[in-house]
Amino acid sequence: MAFLEVNGKKAYYEVHGDHESTLVILNGIMMSCSSWQPFVSLLCQHFKVVLLDFYDQGKSEYLVENYTQELQIELVKETIMALDLQQVTLMGISYGGEVAMKFAVKYQNLIEKLILANTTAYTNQQLRAIGDAWVYAAKTHDGKQFFKNTIPPIYSMDFYEKNIDWLNAREEMFARLFDARWYDGFIRLVISAEAHDARGDVNQIKVPTLLIGADEDIITPLSCQIELNEAIENSRFVVIKNCGHASMYEKPIEFFSAVIGFAAIGEQSFKI
Amino acid sequence: MAFLEVNGKKAYYEVHGDHESTLVILNGIMMSCSSWQPFVSLLCQHFKVVLLDFYDQGKSEYLVENYTQELQIELVKETIMALDLQQVTLMGISYGGEVAMKFAVKYQNLIEKLILANTTAYTNQQLRAIGDAWVYAAKTHDGKQFFKNTIPPIYSMDFYEKNIDWLNAREEMFARLFDARWYDGFIRLVISAEAHDARGDVNQIKVPTLLIGADEDIITPLSCQIELNEAIENSRFVVIKNCGHASMYEKPIEFFSAVIGFAAIGEQSFKI
Amino acid sequence: MAFLEVNGKKAYYEVHGDHESTLVILNGIMMSCSSWQPFVSLLCQHFKVVLLDFYDQGKSEYLVENYTQELQIELVKETIMALDLQQVTLMGISYGGEVAMKFAVKYQNLIEKLILANTTAYTNQQLRAIGDAWVYAAKTHDGKQFFKNTIPPIYSMDFYEKNIDWLNAREEMFARLFDARWYDGFIRLVISAEAHDARGDVNQIKVPTLLIGADEDIITPLSCQIELNEAIENSRFVVIKNCGHASMYEKPIEFFSAVIGFAAIGEQSFKI
Amino acid sequence: MAFLEVNGKKAYYEVHGDHESTLVILNGIMMSCSSWQPFVSLLCQHFKVVLLDFYDQGKSEYLVENYTQELQIELVKETIMALDLQQVTLMGISYGGEVAMKFAVKYQNLIEKLILANTTAYTNQQLRAIGDAWVYAAKTHDGKQFFKNTIPPIYSMDFYEKNIDWLNAREEMFARLFDARWYDGFIRLVISAEAHDARGDVNQIKVPTLLIGADEDIITPLSCQIELNEAIENSRFVVIKNCGHASMYEKPIEFFSAVIGFAAIGEQSFKI
Repeated sequence: MAFLEVNGKKAYYEVHGDHESTLVILNGIMMSCSSWQPFVSLLCQHFKVVLLDFYDQGKSEYLVENYTQELQIELVKETIMALDLQQVTLMGISYGGEVAMKFAVKYQNLIEKLILANTTAYTNQQLRAIGDAWVYAAKTHDGKQFFKNTIPPIYSMDFYEKNIDWLNAREEMFARLFDARWYDGFIRLVISAEAHDARGDVNQIKVPTLLIGADEDIITPLSCQIELNEAIENSRFVVIKNCGHASMYEKPIEFFSAVIGFAAIGEQSFKI
Repeated sequence: MAFLEVNGKKAYYEVHGDHESTLVILNGIMMSCSSWQPFVSLLCQHFKVVLLDFYDQGKSEYLVENYTQELQIELVKETIMALDLQQVTLMGISYGGEVAMKFAVKYQNLIEKLILANTTAYTNQQLRAIGDAWVYAAKTHDGKQFFKNTIPPIYSMDFYEKNIDWLNAREEMFARLFDARWYDGFIRLVISAEAHDARGDVNQIKVPTLLIGADEDIITPLSCQIELNEAIENSRFVVIKNCGHASMYEKPIEFFSAVIGFAAIGEQSFKI
Repeated sequence: MAFLEVNGKKAYYEVHGDHESTLVILNGIMMSCSSWQPFVSLLCQHFKVVLLDFYDQGKSEYLVENYTQELQIELVKETIMALDLQQVTLMGISYGGEVAMKFAVKYQNLIEKLILANTTAYTNQQLRAIGDAWVYAAKTHDGKQFFKNTIPPIYSMDFYEKNIDWLNAREEMFARLFDARWYDGFIRLVISAEAHDARGDVNQIKVPTLLIGADEDIITPLSCQIELNEAIENSRFVVIKNCGHASMYEKPIEFFSAVIGFAAIGEQSFKI
Repeated sequence: MAFLEVNGKKAYYEVHGDHESTLVILNGIMMSCSSWQPFVSLLCQHFKVVLLDFYDQGKSEYLVENYTQELQIELVKETIMALDLQQVTLMGISYGGEVAMKFAVKYQNLIEKLILANTTAYTNQQLRAIGDAWVYAAKTHDGKQFFKNTIPPIYSMDFYEKNIDWLNAREEMFARLFDARWYDGFIRLVISAEAHDARGDVNQIKVPTLLIGADEDIITPLSCQIELNEAIENSRFVVIKNCGHASMYEKPIEFFSAVIGFAAIGEQSFKI
């Protein structure tokens, strides 16, 4: 629970546990360090867990000017350097996965393994249109407008069917929690992802890489991870069934089984 | 190009061609008779084509009170009776499919074949949440808000990638075309579908039935048509690849091949 | 019901009906003209139907030396020329699809439309291993060995579950019907497909093309038709659900709906 | 490396490592303890590993009379009792999964977690026909006939494409290794699975359960594990992409990541 200052901008991070191997987690766009609290005690049995709020997210500094994801990549690097982290598994989901894959291209020597969940090498035109819609809704500063726009495509049909009360309660909570500063930060985050296109670069990733996809992910469908799987040599790929974009919330046991198991194995060759 | 009056409410319909067998087409929620114009000359080679605007749609009457889809079912029945249609293949897409399947349960003797495209037996919680979002956006009467909310999930990723200019042009057009009356009609249409649940009834459908699904349909995913396929005895089922919810726009040749072919064959048994 | 002689080798063909437009059908490897008899009367409502036994198949001549599929391509060409066929839709399934796609590359001007069902651009190593297994079983001249090897992967799980008696009866029939001449012809047919690799050529196909796949096809899985779909510009692609390799037997209504519908439409552009 | 005697029949087992938690592994039908040797040193970092040859398999006793899988279930029970195993995760693949699920129904109190890979609740008619074909081929005692029949459907298309030399070498090895005793044991194993039908019982399984499927599994397709997932309350389900039936050989890192991760987590509830 501390702050790091990079070029005069403060960023919030948390370090949990003192395990030898480290898991650095990069958030999706609507998440923050607090999104991972339900899983911290489990993860601490296997990792030193480092959580980090991107700029314009959670308790990190809210900026004024627009920027690209490059700024967040540098923040991740400064965090790893400042904490002198070793044996790092870097895991990113969605927006965090976009940052993680470009981090891996640029600073491969700082990490040992890479886990990319529900993410894409490229902000395609449909994803950009979805982002535009989210920005347009965020600009209204109307929590209901924002929730109704952003949440239905995040979860699977089955999750909606079974958790409608929890989802309705969250709609109330969104309307209460989010303020102008939050919406403006969210808008800058969306804009920073608009130009994301690592399709020509991800083939440089040589660290052991696990891809996690979900068969009902609408935001970053399986085809996005299939493309990553073809581009990243020796990348591993598992799919969670009956699951939408927020896979660690919908299917935490499947999600963290893959994370903990892959971090334990990494890359090995077996003589069969 | 004429009007029918049922219980004092005027409904618009079009009859094209004079083929012996008839195709009655029921629109999706944001469509109208004019949506089918590009395909009328093709279809007239195979059918007398009957187009119909539901209440609160296109040139039909805009209502004031809310209603259920039962009202639209009766409109379809009155149209078929008034025009004394014979050898009717009834085809509905999305909202039109919901009306068509319940029409088939109720007035099976009036039709010979049934085609249900990109539709569902049940407005599940996720689909209801999407509907709520559309209603909320429509209430702003802001064409951009409305377009950005409703359109991205309607098409496939690939279609977005290749047709972004056409889609952007449509966004401009929506903002120009839609007025308060249209938005209020749209809202009532969404509300009329909220209680849709024909899961317990569709097993009564005995006319030859074709289901058309699209593998990237987000609004009514393949699982919806799989459920219909299991419920409707002897229903036939084809899937269009790389295609979203507006399948007749994205893949007209695949879509109308299935329609024309199935209408030609219907149900036959072959001694293999 | 007649014979054609090409370079001294006799080939059997059938012409049914006198429709203006023609459908030439090329058999799968274990089929013959008689396999299509259940569907001839339906197809004659829409086409002049031309059936053809490849060399080493049905009533055509059984050869002695091995050959490549080039020989069969030339046979198709001679048939179309000899019968002076016009407005030809060429349809091939499995082995017949391999011949059809290479025919389309070589003699594109002789056909108007192309339909490729349950087929592949390339005899991959697994398909070659399956072929080797079939050859090995055929060499025993033991009908039971042959049937048990070849038939289970041809149909879907659901078809097996529902038609086990019909399948068991067919096993008896195979053992009775097939003789040494038949098995030796079958072996040569398999060998003629071993070197099939049109991956570099199918992009030359410019006639309107429909691809039909089946989601439980084990012999030529959907990935084979996805590859064809990407290679053949503007090719159309439909998938039949709950269906194995012998799609016209398992799901004749879906199969022939696609064939009849596509032949009626071909390639058109619609102004949407 | 020791033997256990149950009712006068000797069974071979191996215990590796002395970890607190135990992984008992049940083989697929053509496997034996030696199939797992490449993975033992990895698994020993996380488990005491117990391998076991079923009767008619590997170094266990070869029987004379036919039997049902009940015999193997009792063997598993006797092994767990004799070794006084605690904190047992029971994992079975294919045939081993069939035994494991019925073991879990009968002796649930003896295990803590269950992992079922590439398996089915029911020997459906197609799987039975495949089994019949394998028996028929095995009866020839011809290693080539046997290999060509059994191996192609075991692996994915991609694995075949990339490992054809290894596969060809294995064909030679099979022909050398297998003798009459082995073939006769294999035949009895297939027959013991013919009547397998746990569809009405698996809903009694209450221990935390992980299902592993492979998207190109032909022998026990994903639909089999979907059925298990629906029947076993709270079962978890991951799918390995581009992978056939022998998933632990084709994709060991994905496979054992899931196994190690799930064994570490089991069932937990997270307050999201």
